[in-house]
Amino acid sequence: MKATVYVTIKQNVLDPQGTAVQGALHSMGFAEVDKVRIGKYLELTLDTTDRAEAEERVRAMCEKLLANTVVEDYRFELEG
Amino acid sequence: MKATVYVTIKQNVLDPQGTAVQGALHSMGFAEVDKVRIGKYLELTLDTTDRAEAEERVRAMCEKLLANTVVEDYRFELEG
Repeated sequence: MKATVYVTIKQNVLDPQGTAVQGALHSMGFAEVDKVRIGKYLELTLDTTDRAEAEERVRAMCEKLLANTVVEDYRFELEG
Repeated sequence: MKATVYVTIKQNVLDPQGTAVQGALHSMGFAEVDKVRIGKYLELTLDTTDRAEAEERVRAMCEKLLANTVVEDYRFELEG
């Protein structure tokens, strides 16, 4: 089973990396870029076929390691 | 218009960050994790309404700054 995890910075938390990329895009002539937010994208391959169990386990991985839930949100999709 | 960009490491390129996360997950008891690949996830807010133009511009941003096309792949979605 494959899990795709998206970790994003919460809306009210500053994203200095995104601001830097926006500045770089502006200086390259992409003036239409209003805002940039950068997050992480993870693809996990899991050796399991039980969807319900996988969902619970991936949630635990996100809470414990993959996301810092103080400043980050996460969501994930399971397939296969 | 909103653009969501996914930047991933090409399949045949080593991903040391993913390997480190996999090792950490294993040592935390998540033995079912076979493989981890880590990429970037970007949300761009664009001040434009022309979808065709936005697609061309976002592609240029990816080629020139957001992705290193030697070792990374990218794909993006436009909405709004």
